[in-house]
Amino acid sequence: MKVAFQGERGAYSEAALLEFFGAAAEPAACADSEGTFDAVESGRAKPGFVPVENSIAGSVGVNVDLFWDRPVFAFGEAYHPIRHCLLAPPGATLDGVRTVRSHPVALAQCRPFLAARGLRAVPDYDTAGAAREVARRGAPEEAAVASRLCARVYGLTVLAEDIQSEKNNYTRFLAFRGERGAGPGAGDGKTSLAFSLADRPGALLTALSAFARRGLNLSKLESRPIASNPFEYLFFADALGGARDPSMAEALAELSAAATRVKVFGSYPAAVRPGA
Amino acid sequence: MKVAFQGERGAYSEAALLEFFGAAAEPAACADSEGTFDAVESGRAKPGFVPVENSIAGSVGVNVDLFWDRPVFAFGEAYHPIRHCLLAPPGATLDGVRTVRSHPVALAQCRPFLAARGLRAVPDYDTAGAAREVARRGAPEEAAVASRLCARVYGLTVLAEDIQSEKNNYTRFLAFRGERGAGPGAGDGKTSLAFSLADRPGALLTALSAFARRGLNLSKLESRPIASNPFEYLFFADALGGARDPSMAEALAELSAAATRVKVFGSYPAAVRPGA
Repeated sequence: MKVAFQGERGAYSEAALLEFFGAAAEPAACADSEGTFDAVESGRAKPGFVPVENSIAGSVGVNVDLFWDRPVFAFGEAYHPIRHCLLAPPGATLDGVRTVRSHPVALAQCRPFLAARGLRAVPDYDTAGAAREVARRGAPEEAAVASRLCARVYGLTVLAEDIQSEKNNYTRFLAFRGERGAGPGAGDGKTSLAFSLADRPGALLTALSAFARRGLNLSKLESRPIASNPFEYLFFADALGGARDPSMAEALAELSAAATRVKVFGSYPAAVRPGA
Repeated sequence: MKVAFQGERGAYSEAALLEFFGAAAEPAACADSEGTFDAVESGRAKPGFVPVENSIAGSVGVNVDLFWDRPVFAFGEAYHPIRHCLLAPPGATLDGVRTVRSHPVALAQCRPFLAARGLRAVPDYDTAGAAREVARRGAPEEAAVASRLCARVYGLTVLAEDIQSEKNNYTRFLAFRGERGAGPGAGDGKTSLAFSLADRPGALLTALSAFARRGLNLSKLESRPIASNPFEYLFFADALGGARDPSMAEALAELSAAATRVKVFGSYPAAVRPGA
């Protein structure tokens, strides 16, 4: 089964999707977020798998907006820890490395590790692309900061693991497909949705009371500006419960009456957040 | 007056702060977000100025978390459009450029422009650092994608302007300082705050009803996970109105009774969002 993700082979998104779908999944690398959604809509890949938030950086705006705009539906979530590794060509040693390539954000997250060893940081497009380049050149003094998966994909050696300074670094992903799921969803503990509201006091309160009065908790709520209409607000929410549960179905119906538009992305089993 | 910002000289943050504080401000470049808040807390810079959300990327998690954690207070906001320019050493021409350096995200946002001209993209740490490097080398075939301000800071020529494909790209900034403001705040149209809630159904509804029952609208609401405690939720909100308005003061008092902690970042005149 082909699964679309954004990035190069070996990207953290690919590592996360292999964990979620299992080793039999065939990762299909896409250049950008739009291309990832295109691949799912066109049928070139069956499901897609994209990050929606990171514990440090916050929401991934471009992807949550695409869930709202495109005819796709979520059917699963996963939390994946970001554990940067120092990867070098076979035979290289930690003492021999002089230069380290990676995405600027990954290099910044490993700054104390790199500084303590006097390693020169060289920015690159992304972590996996840096690993591929380091493998291609094969110089023992050059390493990359990237996922452990990159070592396998590009035939590199792991010289050090977990080298980022912030240990609480994880990304949440949603698995999605081009058609609405039809399963009974007995194990669905979470529902992702978005809704737009007219810009007036109390509009959000009315929307949220549909959930609260039924004892349904929200695990995420986030407003996003609507580019084309500053007098409307868009909210992304995760509600705890499946969309087919009677109380959730009632809440969603009530929300539909209060909002200018509601899109239920889908229900799925809730994953456990790291640290929880 | 020294104003702390994150990035190199010429960064979009510096362009935005010069627009906000005026040309007399003395921008103080800091290496990272923590360092920017440190500079304000220690008194090395009087105010600070950091991005809190971008129209495409979403919230800037690291900065909103620092507003919650650090004893700083917001006293102004600004929206700044991200308009990428192609900058080259004096004498260079658009036809003569072969290579373009910038941050990977900026390069991606200008991909159609670069591809149409067959320009080779080279990733760098950040847009302003790429402009500095292009100026240092002075080669007419090498350009940078960066702010118009970088042309002035590094003595470069603007070969093309507004070269990003997505025109609706703007960043929202907050100006902050180390002590709570004491002004009357008659013109304060917006209040930024954060609050944490116990993880139970209806907790958010109770919190929000403090605003809605008084006709106070929210222009932003965003949940963030709390790393150390998965059974509590943190919310960032912008409420329309000043904290000294009687109805807002009542709402904040009511919120304090419902939340496990409330921090009012500050009130300030509301800026106009681009497109509004």
